[in-house]
Amino acid sequence: MDSNTQENENESLTMNNLNPYIFGVTDSVRGPTVTRAVEIEQQLKNDVNRFPFYRVIRANIGDPHASANQSPITYIRQFVVGCTYPPLMNMSDFPSDIKHRVERLLDSCGGKSLGSYTESQGIRTVREDIANYIARRDGYPANPSDIYLCNGATEGIRLVLKLLMNNDRNKPSGIMIPVPQYSLYSDTLSLYGAYQIGYYLDEDNNWALNLDELERSFDEAKEHCVPRGIVIINPGNPTGQILTAENIRMVIKFAYKHKLFIVADEVYQENIYLPNFKFCSFKKALMDLGSPYNQMQMASFHSASKGWHGECGSRGGYYELINLTEDVRIQVNKLVSAGICSTAWGQVVMNAIINPPRKGEPSYELYEKERSDVFNRLKQKANLITDLFNSVEGVRCNRVMGAMYAFPRIDLPEKTVEHAKSINMTPDTFYCFQLLEKTGICVVPGSGFKQRPNTYHFRITILSPVDEIKQIVERFRTFHESFLREWQ
Amino acid sequence: MDSNTQENENESLTMNNLNPYIFGVTDSVRGPTVTRAVEIEQQLKNDVNRFPFYRVIRANIGDPHASANQSPITYIRQFVVGCTYPPLMNMSDFPSDIKHRVERLLDSCGGKSLGSYTESQGIRTVREDIANYIARRDGYPANPSDIYLCNGATEGIRLVLKLLMNNDRNKPSGIMIPVPQYSLYSDTLSLYGAYQIGYYLDEDNNWALNLDELERSFDEAKEHCVPRGIVIINPGNPTGQILTAENIRMVIKFAYKHKLFIVADEVYQENIYLPNFKFCSFKKALMDLGSPYNQMQMASFHSASKGWHGECGSRGGYYELINLTEDVRIQVNKLVSAGICSTAWGQVVMNAIINPPRKGEPSYELYEKERSDVFNRLKQKANLITDLFNSVEGVRCNRVMGAMYAFPRIDLPEKTVEHAKSINMTPDTFYCFQLLEKTGICVVPGSGFKQRPNTYHFRITILSPVDEIKQIVERFRTFHESFLREWQ
Repeated sequence: MDSNTQENENESLTMNNLNPYIFGVTDSVRGPTVTRAVEIEQQLKNDVNRFPFYRVIRANIGDPHASANQSPITYIRQFVVGCTYPPLMNMSDFPSDIKHRVERLLDSCGGKSLGSYTESQGIRTVREDIANYIARRDGYPANPSDIYLCNGATEGIRLVLKLLMNNDRNKPSGIMIPVPQYSLYSDTLSLYGAYQIGYYLDEDNNWALNLDELERSFDEAKEHCVPRGIVIINPGNPTGQILTAENIRMVIKFAYKHKLFIVADEVYQENIYLPNFKFCSFKKALMDLGSPYNQMQMASFHSASKGWHGECGSRGGYYELINLTEDVRIQVNKLVSAGICSTAWGQVVMNAIINPPRKGEPSYELYEKERSDVFNRLKQKANLITDLFNSVEGVRCNRVMGAMYAFPRIDLPEKTVEHAKSINMTPDTFYCFQLLEKTGICVVPGSGFKQRPNTYHFRITILSPVDEIKQIVERFRTFHESFLREWQ
Repeated sequence: MDSNTQENENESLTMNNLNPYIFGVTDSVRGPTVTRAVEIEQQLKNDVNRFPFYRVIRANIGDPHASANQSPITYIRQFVVGCTYPPLMNMSDFPSDIKHRVERLLDSCGGKSLGSYTESQGIRTVREDIANYIARRDGYPANPSDIYLCNGATEGIRLVLKLLMNNDRNKPSGIMIPVPQYSLYSDTLSLYGAYQIGYYLDEDNNWALNLDELERSFDEAKEHCVPRGIVIINPGNPTGQILTAENIRMVIKFAYKHKLFIVADEVYQENIYLPNFKFCSFKKALMDLGSPYNQMQMASFHSASKGWHGECGSRGGYYELINLTEDVRIQVNKLVSAGICSTAWGQVVMNAIINPPRKGEPSYELYEKERSDVFNRLKQKANLITDLFNSVEGVRCNRVMGAMYAFPRIDLPEKTVEHAKSINMTPDTFYCFQLLEKTGICVVPGSGFKQRPNTYHFRITILSPVDEIKQIVERFRTFHESFLREWQ
């Protein structure tokens, strides 16, 4: 430790009095391997021959425009610029359907400008369009008053988890989270001082949820916390699975039995690669089950960052919050209102995404062409990466059915495991660092998402161009084989 | 209470198990008077003769595009659309200086698209430009690594206050906040379970800070909490004052003595209406004082929502966080990174604001014209509203030197005070509700910001057009006189 860790007369904020919950935050997706990747990129700039590769492949985060140089969808960007600077719409070639949508949106903004604060829940017409999108998706009506726009799903998820925190009792609040899970959940619960009730997804059964396992984890946690909610990520992150409607109904009945608030992370609902498969939302399953389940309280999240259009930078997102009592709703709305509102530009991007041009409208053809190009490539890559990983010895990878990631399992030699532990590292982190140093491929170790003890995985995005994916897996194969030879 | 408050088999989230800290959030700026204002607007739509006015004047929130139909600044919006949809820049009349800026910005975005996640702290070139802006402002260098972009200053302030929370000791963390203060602070501290150490601003001395009062409030709070930081809002919200450099230096020495982290809310730094006055930032004062003060840790906040351009909807904002030790910095950056990044569009708007066109550049003249139009009107209105309020009997209003608000003090008859208390309302809230019902003017009661016991104020924005401001104060005068007659 350097002298900085010594307390000093001028320091009001030190390692001794910093909020201790921050130490529990891991930020695995942009964590230590990424920090090293950035260093390597810098070193490559100074000396292109320093590593056995000429550039780093950032396969750690689902970020399509950056990872694959995927171009933005014209319809979305034209809608945004029309809303931003309306004089542009006087250009003769500005599509009339977009112009009509822009005018409708600006009519519900103060001073007809995106520069005004929006309603705290979000611009009224955006919420109406989202409610229509949900109704089309599920076949059940949705209420614009149940919709809340937010800065990325991240912000919304944190707010909803906040509602469930009631740590003043003798026991902390507990939230059930899948293992493996997207680290936003474990990080947020660490920060809130909440108890994490990890339930294992069933890797041998396409990462489905298992009732016995849910009951086991609930039972074991009961004495340490007051269980309050259950998080489900569907399609899965980091796992890429899609749950069946039957599996979802089982989870709903389990949540009902234990009075758990359902937190349904459905941000990958548009990323479905299984042929002839229709996404089933938790809300639809709840409604299909009828009374009393259709009166359960739940939140479902969607995000402009995900889907196939890749508008991550907009930080658009929304959640639908259903079946709250009137008095709880008032408290929630007050809390939302204290944050003033989410970014108007993010709301506009979200609006474009859930309200695409319809057949016959001037923007439809180009939109449909751009959409199917991107989407078909994603589908192809999801299959390709699964097959390629499964062709490597000692690697097993469940089919990537949805989302943006493969989560292959790797067998690591006992010697590697011991060595990693001796240098205070998880074995998969050690492995991923080696992969990065030898091949330039940057992935996230499975331990960043939690995993069953003594199993090792990593998460890799499926976003790189098709040819690059082939090269990535070939480079990986060579690395993995030589790694095993070295450590066996 | 209706039957909704009864617990029910289907309810996982009830008034009994909701996070109890949420009850302490007040959201005064968009609170009950605004809810009533929205109802009245609806009632006016159905029956234009129902009230003695034909529309509600929303003077409760600083939202220029909405309040005054203020047009967006062309330079800002052209920069945003260039970044959003680069093909637009092929138009022959697209300004070349903006094109150059857009290209530089997109070069530091993944895939040259705003659709990529940005670096967690914000786009590199934006942080460089902000560092240059701060250096020009203060005459001291700033480091891009100390700059953090955020979704409105609100998000940044919450994050920085979060760092200081260390409630696991026997006493909660305490934060000194001005009284009156912008309710974001009291709301956030309520939500965090922190102790609010209110120090009174000196109304008789242009709302300056007073050393004896700081020491008094600190001393009294010591036994209830561990004081960790001090919030200063300069220019003031809701008070509209500007602190002198001398006053600021006094506060810095006080913070040094007690090892308090300085939280400087300087979001109104561009809204300075005093002639020949230059804004003094806390950082400049700290640096001017030299050692050991220039090694103190502090955060300063700025926001795209404030200033004179009024880009509230963008939710752009940033903070500068200086003099952290390396190990604390790592923890902070990890926490920031776990939130992924702030909205790229907000960052772009913030960039345009702190990097305006320079003399000689093609966009300069129009920008300068638009800027001086808006700014001169604000200056005129700040003076006008002060003078007009002071011409009403029983009203005293400190000069609006900066920010966007007047905070006049009103004397309320004892009978009003008793009546309000009998209906469980603060007297100023009762008064503001009456003002709304009789005149359509929507303002925020002083109690929403906290105020000295037995004093009553309200906050009103200075944003309405000049003619309307005159009408507002005349309507207010008539109302106030008749109110006094009724209650005396």
